[in-house]
Amino acid sequence: MSRNLRLGMVGGGPGAFIGDVHRKAAALDGHFDLVCGAFSSNPEKSKQAGNTLNLDASRVYGSYKEMFEKESQLPENERMDAVSIVTPNHVHFEPAKLALESGFHVIIDKPLVFSLDEARELKKVVEETGNILALTHTYTGYPMIKEAKHIVEEGKLGKIRKIFVEYPQGWLATPLEQEGNKQASWRTDPDKSGAGGAIGDIGTHAANLAEYVSGLNITEICADVNIAVKNRKLDDDSAALLKFEDGASGVLIATQVAAGEENDLKLRVYGEKGGVEWTHTDPSTLLYKLHEKPVQILRAGTGYLSEAATSNHRLPAGHPEGYLEAFANIYVEFYRAVTDFQKGGTFKATDYDFPNVDDGVRGMAFVATMVESNKSESKWTPFK
Amino acid sequence: MSRNLRLGMVGGGPGAFIGDVHRKAAALDGHFDLVCGAFSSNPEKSKQAGNTLNLDASRVYGSYKEMFEKESQLPENERMDAVSIVTPNHVHFEPAKLALESGFHVIIDKPLVFSLDEARELKKVVEETGNILALTHTYTGYPMIKEAKHIVEEGKLGKIRKIFVEYPQGWLATPLEQEGNKQASWRTDPDKSGAGGAIGDIGTHAANLAEYVSGLNITEICADVNIAVKNRKLDDDSAALLKFEDGASGVLIATQVAAGEENDLKLRVYGEKGGVEWTHTDPSTLLYKLHEKPVQILRAGTGYLSEAATSNHRLPAGHPEGYLEAFANIYVEFYRAVTDFQKGGTFKATDYDFPNVDDGVRGMAFVATMVESNKSESKWTPFK
Amino acid sequence: MSRNLRLGMVGGGPGAFIGDVHRKAAALDGHFDLVCGAFSSNPEKSKQAGNTLNLDASRVYGSYKEMFEKESQLPENERMDAVSIVTPNHVHFEPAKLALESGFHVIIDKPLVFSLDEARELKKVVEETGNILALTHTYTGYPMIKEAKHIVEEGKLGKIRKIFVEYPQGWLATPLEQEGNKQASWRTDPDKSGAGGAIGDIGTHAANLAEYVSGLNITEICADVNIAVKNRKLDDDSAALLKFEDGASGVLIATQVAAGEENDLKLRVYGEKGGVEWTHTDPSTLLYKLHEKPVQILRAGTGYLSEAATSNHRLPAGHPEGYLEAFANIYVEFYRAVTDFQKGGTFKATDYDFPNVDDGVRGMAFVATMVESNKSESKWTPFK
Amino acid sequence: MSRNLRLGMVGGGPGAFIGDVHRKAAALDGHFDLVCGAFSSNPEKSKQAGNTLNLDASRVYGSYKEMFEKESQLPENERMDAVSIVTPNHVHFEPAKLALESGFHVIIDKPLVFSLDEARELKKVVEETGNILALTHTYTGYPMIKEAKHIVEEGKLGKIRKIFVEYPQGWLATPLEQEGNKQASWRTDPDKSGAGGAIGDIGTHAANLAEYVSGLNITEICADVNIAVKNRKLDDDSAALLKFEDGASGVLIATQVAAGEENDLKLRVYGEKGGVEWTHTDPSTLLYKLHEKPVQILRAGTGYLSEAATSNHRLPAGHPEGYLEAFANIYVEFYRAVTDFQKGGTFKATDYDFPNVDDGVRGMAFVATMVESNKSESKWTPFK
Repeated sequence: MSRNLRLGMVGGGPGAFIGDVHRKAAALDGHFDLVCGAFSSNPEKSKQAGNTLNLDASRVYGSYKEMFEKESQLPENERMDAVSIVTPNHVHFEPAKLALESGFHVIIDKPLVFSLDEARELKKVVEETGNILALTHTYTGYPMIKEAKHIVEEGKLGKIRKIFVEYPQGWLATPLEQEGNKQASWRTDPDKSGAGGAIGDIGTHAANLAEYVSGLNITEICADVNIAVKNRKLDDDSAALLKFEDGASGVLIATQVAAGEENDLKLRVYGEKGGVEWTHTDPSTLLYKLHEKPVQILRAGTGYLSEAATSNHRLPAGHPEGYLEAFANIYVEFYRAVTDFQKGGTFKATDYDFPNVDDGVRGMAFVATMVESNKSESKWTPFK
Repeated sequence: MSRNLRLGMVGGGPGAFIGDVHRKAAALDGHFDLVCGAFSSNPEKSKQAGNTLNLDASRVYGSYKEMFEKESQLPENERMDAVSIVTPNHVHFEPAKLALESGFHVIIDKPLVFSLDEARELKKVVEETGNILALTHTYTGYPMIKEAKHIVEEGKLGKIRKIFVEYPQGWLATPLEQEGNKQASWRTDPDKSGAGGAIGDIGTHAANLAEYVSGLNITEICADVNIAVKNRKLDDDSAALLKFEDGASGVLIATQVAAGEENDLKLRVYGEKGGVEWTHTDPSTLLYKLHEKPVQILRAGTGYLSEAATSNHRLPAGHPEGYLEAFANIYVEFYRAVTDFQKGGTFKATDYDFPNVDDGVRGMAFVATMVESNKSESKWTPFK
Repeated sequence: MSRNLRLGMVGGGPGAFIGDVHRKAAALDGHFDLVCGAFSSNPEKSKQAGNTLNLDASRVYGSYKEMFEKESQLPENERMDAVSIVTPNHVHFEPAKLALESGFHVIIDKPLVFSLDEARELKKVVEETGNILALTHTYTGYPMIKEAKHIVEEGKLGKIRKIFVEYPQGWLATPLEQEGNKQASWRTDPDKSGAGGAIGDIGTHAANLAEYVSGLNITEICADVNIAVKNRKLDDDSAALLKFEDGASGVLIATQVAAGEENDLKLRVYGEKGGVEWTHTDPSTLLYKLHEKPVQILRAGTGYLSEAATSNHRLPAGHPEGYLEAFANIYVEFYRAVTDFQKGGTFKATDYDFPNVDDGVRGMAFVATMVESNKSESKWTPFK
Repeated sequence: MSRNLRLGMVGGGPGAFIGDVHRKAAALDGHFDLVCGAFSSNPEKSKQAGNTLNLDASRVYGSYKEMFEKESQLPENERMDAVSIVTPNHVHFEPAKLALESGFHVIIDKPLVFSLDEARELKKVVEETGNILALTHTYTGYPMIKEAKHIVEEGKLGKIRKIFVEYPQGWLATPLEQEGNKQASWRTDPDKSGAGGAIGDIGTHAANLAEYVSGLNITEICADVNIAVKNRKLDDDSAALLKFEDGASGVLIATQVAAGEENDLKLRVYGEKGGVEWTHTDPSTLLYKLHEKPVQILRAGTGYLSEAATSNHRLPAGHPEGYLEAFANIYVEFYRAVTDFQKGGTFKATDYDFPNVDDGVRGMAFVATMVESNKSESKWTPFK
C-alpha cells in the first residue's frame, strides 16, 4: 500500500487560474492531499486562500521561505512531500531552487523560469539535489498525444517529413492589460514574464508538443515575432519556419491575437507513409491518416490503443476527458516517481513520462532563439 | 468557512466503473473527503478496496448495515455526512432507505432503484426523514445543458414543438454477458437490473435530459423495445414516439446494439423560433439555431453564457471539461445542499439544481411505461 | 459514338426551383441537349422561359399536349427523345402518361404522382408502353450512398438490425404559405401535393434512402404525423417507428418545422458487426464503423471505394461534389438506359441504377401508409 | 435575349483531368456550347476526343494554330467566341497569345504561363488586343469565399492583422512520377511546369486566395521550399512567412507530401475585431468569429448573405455545391464579360469578379519570389 503524498503550494491565491487547476488536478485521482501553502506574497491573502481551502491555519504561510523552513521541521510523517509552484514566471526560480535544496520535490508550471540562464542554473540544482522536478506541459498529458507519439515511434508513419503545430488564441486581441486585467498584465510585462509573451506562454507548449510527439528536436528556427496590439510591451504574436533533426521541417504558429479563437492548439505530423492530427478542441480524438487509405478516427478509452494512451485515460470510450484530466496525468506520473523515489532513493527521468527540467531548459532556449531569430536578418538561427 | 464533507461509499469495489467515477467526481473540487466504505458484499474485497484507497482500516466495513451503524456511533465531527451508493440496481433501495433512516444524506447512481414500487417507497422515506437524496443523472451536469435549459426558459426558442433525444451505444452488440463480462452480466440480468436493460441504463438518461432541458413532461409513449442479441434476457434496444405537455412531440432512441458507436447521447429541441442541439461527443458546445439566422456555436467557459452554465464550468473557454466534471457538478451542488442543511436544518429541492428522488421516481415510471407500451397493441400509453 | 439525347421539359418556368435543377443536372455531363419545353400552363410564361433558355421559339409550346403532339411529328433525328416532368405533384400523372404513350421516355420529379391509385395506373402505362421512366430521388445518386449500399451488400455489417433515417428541415416553421410564398403554397395544399405534405416531400426521400441502402423493405409503420403550424392544411411534421424485413427495425423522422435546420438528411444503418453513417451536409463522406475498431472516414474520389461509388464521382478526392452532381448521376444513368434502349429496343430495370416507377409506387404507398397509421389507434400498420 | 457563347478548347484530350472540369463547368449553367477543339498535339487523339464529345468532325483540329485560323474564317454566327486553354503550363503562352491576337477571348487554367517573363509579355498582348482573359483560380469562385471577402471589405473584422493560408495535399508523397503517372510526370518536370512544382500548382492558389479575401497584397516573403521525395526534380513542399500591406502578416503552407491529406485548402483571416475561416472540405460553410462572441456558422444559400455570395450559389441552403460549381462561377462571370464586350466593345476588369491576367502575372511573380527567397540567406525577399 502506498500512502497519499502531502502537497504544498506556492502561489495560487484568490482569483488565480492556474493554481486552482493544479489543486483540482492533484485531487482528481486521490494521490495527493493539499496540506500547506504560501498562496500569496501578501500574508493576509495567503491566509484567506488557506481558509477557503479548509487548510489547517498553522500550515498556511506568509512566504514560501517560511513554508519550506517550517515544513522541514515537521515530523517526517506530517511534513509535505512535494510542492506545486504556480506563481508568475519571475517567481519560479527562487522558490523552486529553495524547495529542491530543502529536500522537497517540485512540480512547477511552465515556462520553467524567467530566463535561459535561470533555467540552466535550476537544472544544476536538480542534478545536485537529486530531487524530482516536473513541469506541467499539460498537453503532453493527453492520451491521444501519447498515442500519436506511439504511432511515430512504431514507425507507422515512416520517416517524418513535416511537422505543423499551431496555437491560436484570441484573448489578447484587445489591450486587456491596459484595462486592468490581472492575468493579461503580468503576461505582457517583461519584468514578470521574461523575454517572451506569446512565445513563452503558448509557443513553448507548441514547441514542446511538436518535439514530444515527433521525437525530433528543432535544430533551426526562422521566426517572425510581433507585437500586434499598440503599446503592448511583449510579443503577442509569432510564427516560425522550423528545421528538425533528420531532415524534417515544419511550421509553428503561436498567436494570442487571433480574435475569435479560444485555445486551439493543433498538431500535425507527416511521414513518408501517413500522418496524425490532433486538436485541443477535440482532445479525445486522433486522426490517423495512412496514404491512400481511409482516415481512421482513433478515440480515447477504446480497446485498440497503445498502453501509453490507455493508462492515461480513466473512462470508457465516449466519456470525454479534458484539460484537468490531462493535467492530472502529469500529477499521477509525478506521484509515481516521488513514491518510487521515497522507496528506492533514486530517480531516473527516462522511467517516467512527464516533462522535466530538461524540457524546461529547452523551453527557455526556445524563447531565447525565437527572440534572437526575430532580430536577425539571416534566415536561420540555430536552436541549441 | 465551510468544512469538507465526510463521504462514505456503498459498492465501488475493485473493477467497478461507476464507483471510481463517483470518487473522482467527489474529489475534484475539494469538498468531500472519502472517509469510509462498504465497497463489496464480500468483506475481503471491501478491505482490499479500502486499502487501495488509503482508508483507515477501521472504517472499511464488511456491509453497509455495519457501516451505517458504526458510523452513527462516531462523534459528530468524525462520522460520515453522506454516502454514495454505487451498487447494481437491485442493491439500491435497501442501503438508500437505511442510510436515510440512519441520518445520512444520500447520493445514488441511476436508475434510482429496481422497480417503480421501490421508487415510490423510497420517495416516502426521503419525505419522512427530511434527508437529502441526489441522483447522478450526469448529463444534466454539463454546463451547455444548463445553457440549453436556460435558452428554453428564456423563451428564445418560442413554444417548444419537437424534442429529439437519442442515445446510441454499441457495446452490447455482441453477447458480452455470455462471455463473462461482469458489467454486461448484471446489466442484462433482470434480477439485478430490473424491468429495463437499455431503457433503464440509458433510456432513463435520455428521457431525463429531454424533460430537464425542455421543461416539459412526457405524457404519452409509443414504444418499440427489442432484444436484438440472441439469448439476451433484457432489452438492448428501444425507440419511442413521445408526446409532451403543451402539444410538443418527439422521438427517443436508446439502443446498445448500434455497433461502432460509443456513448453518443444527443439532444435536439425545437420551438417556433429556433432550436438547440447538444451532443455528448462535443459537450462543451451547444448549437443555437435561430430560424433563418446563422447557427451560433455557444461554447463553455465563455463570457456570454448564463450564470447556470458559467457556474458549472471551471476553466476558460477552449479548455475542455468532460464527463467527470459534469459528474462533479452534481457533487458540488449536493455539497451545497448538505452544507446548507447542516446550517439551517431544512432542504428545499427547488433551491438546488441536481436530480433528486422525484427524477428517480420518474425514471422508474419511464421504464415501466416503456415496457407496458411495448406490450400494448394500442399506439399510445400514458406516462403518469 | 453515341449522340446526345434531345430533352424536353414540362414545367420549370420562371422562378421554379426544381426545373432549373433538372436543366443543370442534364447539362452537366454533356449528354443531353434541351430542345423544347412546355414550361408553364400559361403560354406567355412558357414562351418567356424558352426565350431565357435560348430555345428555338418554334419548340416552346403552350401545353404539354401540344408539345408531345408536335414533337412526335418531327423527323426522328430532330424530335425529342425524352422529357423531364417538373411540375407540382398534381400535374405529374397526365403528362407522364401521355408522354409514355406518345413514345417518349420520362424522367420525373418525386413524389411520382398525386396518389397511390395514380401511381399504380402509371406503372401499368410504363409496362404497356415499354418506355423508360426514371424518378429523381436525388439522394440515391450520391457516390457515398452507393458505397454504403455496397458495404451492406457485401455483408460487411453482418445482418442488419437498426436503420435510422431523419430528414429535418426548418423552412416551414413559419406559415410561409399564408404569406404568399409560392413553393410553400403548393407544398402545403392538398389539392396540389396530395395526401402528404412533409411525408410526401421529404418523407418519401427518407424512406427510399433507407430501403435503397439497407436492401430491406419497410413492412410495418407506426406513425405520428402532425400539423405544427396553425391553419396549415397538410402535415409539416412526422416521425415513425419502422419494421423492416428480416427482423430489422428503425426510426424515421421527416419534419419541416425544425426551425434553424436546412436540409439535413441523415442515414444510419447498423448490423451485427458495424454501421455506416451518412449526412447530406457532408455528402462526400461516409463513416464506416466496425465494432470496437477505429471509425473509418470513407471519402468520395479516393481509390479504395467500390466501382459503384467511383463511377458516380467525377473528381479526385478532396474536390467536393454536391447536390447537382448527385442529381446528374441519375440523368447519366437515365441517358445510358435510353441510349441502350434506342439501340436494342428493350429496357431491363435491374441493369440500371436509378429509381424507377416501382420506387415511385412505393413512395406513394409510403405516404398512404403514414396517413393511415396516423389515424389508427393500433400501433402497427402494414406497409404493402 | 442573349445567345450562348461558342467555346473552343486547347488540350483536354483523353484522360486529362482539368479539361473535363472546364467542359462540365462551362456546360453547367447553359451559357456555353462547346463547338470545336484541338484536344491534343496528336491529331489522332484530338479526333478521338472530339468524337467522344459528339463534336462535328470538321471542327476538331490537329493543332491550335489550325483551329484559330480555320475558326477565324467561319461566319461570325458560327465561329467560336472564346477558347479554354487547359494544356500543361509550358503550352499556355503560345496558344493564349495566338488566340488573343486572332480575336478570341481566352479562359485559361492556372498558373497563367511558364515563367514570369511570359506572364508579363502575355499581359501586354491582353492590353494590346483588348480581348478578355480569365484565369481559373477556382477557389475564388466559391460563394463563401465571396462572403469572406465581403466581410473584410465591410470592415467587420477591423484592421487585418493575420492571414494564415495552407494547402496540404498528399498525392505526391510517393515518387508517382517515377512510376509512370502522367499527371505527376508533368507536374514535377521543370521543362513542363516551370520553376515551381507545389508552389506553382497549389501555392499560387493559396497566395491568390489570401490576397483576394484580405484585399491586401503580399509584400515580403520568407520561404522554405523543399523536395521531400528523392530524385524528384521540382519542389513538392513549401512554407513561407508573409508580410502584407498595412502591417498584416501571415503564414503560407503549400505541400504535396502531407501523406494522407486530400486537397485541404484552408484560409483564416483575423482582424482587430474577429476572424473568418474557410476550408475546402466544407466549402459551403464560413466560420465568422467575432471577439468574445459566439462563432457564427454562415452557410451558402441562406438569405442573410451578401449579394456576392448569393449570386454565386444556385441552390437553397442545405443543398451542397462543390468544386464544379465554383469553377462554373468563373465561367458565368466570363460569359457575362464576353457578352457585354460583344455588345459594347469594351472590357473593364473591375466590373467583373473573376481572376484575370494581373492575377496571373502575380501568380508567376509569387513562384519566382518563393524560389528566390528559398535560395537567399536573408530572411525577407520583397514580392514585387
